[in-house]
Amino acid sequence: MTEALFRARNLIREIQGYPTPGIRFQDLTPLLADGPSFSAVIAELIPLAEGCQAIAGIEARGFIFAAALAHTLNIGFVPIRKKGKLPFKTHEESYGLEYGSDVLQIHQDAIEPGAKVLLIDDVLATGGTACAATKLIERAGGVVVALGTVIEIPYLAGRQKIAQEFPHLSVHSIFRI
Amino acid sequence: MTEALFRARNLIREIQGYPTPGIRFQDLTPLLADGPSFSAVIAELIPLAEGCQAIAGIEARGFIFAAALAHTLNIGFVPIRKKGKLPFKTHEESYGLEYGSDVLQIHQDAIEPGAKVLLIDDVLATGGTACAATKLIERAGGVVVALGTVIEIPYLAGRQKIAQEFPHLSVHSIFRI
Repeated sequence: MTEALFRARNLIREIQGYPTPGIRFQDLTPLLADGPSFSAVIAELIPLAEGCQAIAGIEARGFIFAAALAHTLNIGFVPIRKKGKLPFKTHEESYGLEYGSDVLQIHQDAIEPGAKVLLIDDVLATGGTACAATKLIERAGGVVVALGTVIEIPYLAGRQKIAQEFPHLSVHSIFRI
Repeated sequence: MTEALFRARNLIREIQGYPTPGIRFQDLTPLLADGPSFSAVIAELIPLAEGCQAIAGIEARGFIFAAALAHTLNIGFVPIRKKGKLPFKTHEESYGLEYGSDVLQIHQDAIEPGAKVLLIDDVLATGGTACAATKLIERAGGVVVALGTVIEIPYLAGRQKIAQEFPHLSVHSIFRI
């Protein structure tokens, strides 16, 4: 691990009991507030995008990393949003979360047919969000080649869930907590 | 206007009646999906950040532009979020929108005391969101030196509202629609 990445790791703040009692939330805001740490994280994600024509990010924290990465690579950014937030025709998928459930949407015309897409989110927990987002990208005509997250929580076994549903999908995380 | 910026402008899609009847929503997703257009927009925002130590973005579409800009400049990104989305101690401000009202929050420790901050959002409409975000950054100890948005809707007079409340704040938009 580089010094910048080590510094980034130390800026992740654990918050007990957010958003619900019993959850230990990993707060990335101190990392984001430190330019070199934010850059070190984006640098780790760059190789995952090799051969991709678009970077998809999941609302809202996934937007931060996906947009910075897409801009660095001069390729398109595709938002995957909570229900009701996209104004044009959408596909939608519901999914279970570590705490609760929700619906994600993608614009039907978001992706060029056959385009290779890197999916980005902040955290890989149970994998429910990532699987729903992968289904959406594929329904929109794209091919998800990899998932990249900043944090992975291995005991929630998201990686195993994704391997079962999408065996072709390569899963990468920077920090395991 | 450069050719890339002209192309970006042509990729903004107007959607009638979203999110409520009578509203003509400016959909930036086709622009974001085009790498060179996204980059052309970020390039226009770069000069606004001169002398700034942080870029603040307003949830959720503001995150996309603010994070890409902060990463390009290797400076920190500060999220301003809807109520209940930030896990640590927050300041909050309520504000009126073109359609409805809402509450924004910032982490109390988000900004170094006295830091100069560029505030970024996707659209400047009535200016209510930008004024609330400016108050939050100032309560957190920062100094907002400029507001940059991709789109401005001049007939909603957001620029005039900001000039009354924050006369020191420089307001820039790329496209007026």
